Amino acid sequence: MSLLVVGSIAYDSIKTPHGSADDALGGAAVYFSLAASHFTPVRLVGVVGEDFKPEFVELLQSRSVCTQGLEKIDGGKTFRWAGEYSADMNSRETLSCDLNVFENFEPKLPTDYHDSRFVFLANAAPVTQLSVLEQVDAPDFVMADTMDLWINIARDDLELLLSRIDGISLNDAEALQLTGRKNLIDAGRAILDYGVTTVIVKKGEHGSLVITGDRTVPLPAYPTATVCDPTGAGDSFAGALMGELARTGSVDEDSLKRATACGSVVASFTCEGFGTDRLASVERAAIDSRLTEFCDGLRITHQPAIS
Amino acid sequence: MSLLVVGSIAYDSIKTPHGSADDALGGAAVYFSLAASHFTPVRLVGVVGEDFKPEFVELLQSRSVCTQGLEKIDGGKTFRWAGEYSADMNSRETLSCDLNVFENFEPKLPTDYHDSRFVFLANAAPVTQLSVLEQVDAPDFVMADTMDLWINIARDDLELLLSRIDGISLNDAEALQLTGRKNLIDAGRAILDYGVTTVIVKKGEHGSLVITGDRTVPLPAYPTATVCDPTGAGDSFAGALMGELARTGSVDEDSLKRATACGSVVASFTCEGFGTDRLASVERAAIDSRLTEFCDGLRITHQPAIS
Repeated sequence: MSLLVVGSIAYDSIKTPHGSADDALGGAAVYFSLAASHFTPVRLVGVVGEDFKPEFVELLQSRSVCTQGLEKIDGGKTFRWAGEYSADMNSRETLSCDLNVFENFEPKLPTDYHDSRFVFLANAAPVTQLSVLEQVDAPDFVMADTMDLWINIARDDLELLLSRIDGISLNDAEALQLTGRKNLIDAGRAILDYGVTTVIVKKGEHGSLVITGDRTVPLPAYPTATVCDPTGAGDSFAGALMGELARTGSVDEDSLKRATACGSVVASFTCEGFGTDRLASVERAAIDSRLTEFCDGLRITHQPAIS
Repeated sequence: MSLLVVGSIAYDSIKTPHGSADDALGGAAVYFSLAASHFTPVRLVGVVGEDFKPEFVELLQSRSVCTQGLEKIDGGKTFRWAGEYSADMNSRETLSCDLNVFENFEPKLPTDYHDSRFVFLANAAPVTQLSVLEQVDAPDFVMADTMDLWINIARDDLELLLSRIDGISLNDAEALQLTGRKNLIDAGRAILDYGVTTVIVKKGEHGSLVITGDRTVPLPAYPTATVCDPTGAGDSFAGALMGELARTGSVDEDSLKRATACGSVVASFTCEGFGTDRLASVERAAIDSRLTEFCDGLRITHQPAIS
């Protein structure tokens, strides 16, 4: 099934205890696309400035990412973000954030993309995300990401968005913030009331919660000991998840769990390299190998507890 | 297989956003025993004062916990702990801690307990834990718990203990503290170098890591939305884990995973009541039902990632 992603494309400058990178390829839609492309071809809609390097476009194209929806603004500058991670890499500080051409981003879908069946609305103003919905004909499954900023300043738009889409992926703090609940399970399930059928609560190194009408399934993160740079882990997670769903065309509970496992595994590769380095270069056999290991690890031979 | 636990028995006074309890039955060895007793009979060694209520002894006995090793000190007072939880229950403050008779606890195993095959050394001074090892003949599997205090003030004794036992259960912060590592997977695996074959890293609501020579398996916590009082959750987790291992007599990877799942499920019941209330009263059918749900939830039908 066709998979469309709409979101940010950026130049990232990153500093972690393991090294640093300047003006690396980044942005939510980029991490998402590269991750999803391991599972299915991707249609990317985003905006860049005149300064966006042709080799980055070529990299995306070489990874089965269609860049027909990549808008280049003459005289504009690409979104730039710079951040530095703490010693334990559990927190990061944004050093600078220049939205540039992303500030007035008005997604315009090429006609060829109107028939997209799986759609991911990466983090952006809810009103921008809503504008994408107007341009797709009859998608099977639309999932969005969001952030604390929009919960704070655009709650009405966000609630309207939630009533019109199928799934939301957000992190633990955002789930608590959105619902005002104290318990994460409680918060995750309360988000269903906004009108989505699927909630994915991302907990970073602690895994995720896959929440549907029937069930709350906690899944761990793939355990990696070599975390070099966590930038883009959440977007890679969402990319692999949506890529796997789009590959099979199914969104039942089994598919959601398998897709979440794909997300965990691909995110682990993202963290092991700087920026998109490892994510873009990892081989499909390496992903499959970790996926098998991960799923086997979670397989517990259950016997009645007391004989 | 026989299961022995040695550790604290206490009167707990607890305050959480959901209520409070005074002089409730508590202590690591008590939570452990009640949890383990759902899987196998337990031999309990601990010390109490003259003030310890006979009905608490009766409760333990009614739950297949042998209290032959319960030492009562004439004129002594039982260990008392008082604590208050934060609004989100992710942190707690110790309001008072009177060790009383536990301060000079010298575990003395009844002769009948010398042949114990599974042994759990609940949190205590490593030298106290070591003294138990001298009194058991030929145990199959000995696991210990510890805390930040002993890592700080009794590291040599703790390292000696680790070289003589099979497994250690400790929380995430303690694993990082013990090893000086920044990454939890890295830290957990580094603990194997102290001489244990099994490391269980407890992450509270985020689950646990089951670490053996071959594998690092992350398992989530059973997701519960009604956390009333987390006191004793870690000890209940260890109790159910060791109880299930002792029940089957096996400590291979499959058994460790199933036992960890039992730990997660029983800990979820502990959290849903105040003190030991829910833990002591939960029926075996309710445990089995959650265990089945939990293991089924983790079962992912894996297919090669790309068709």
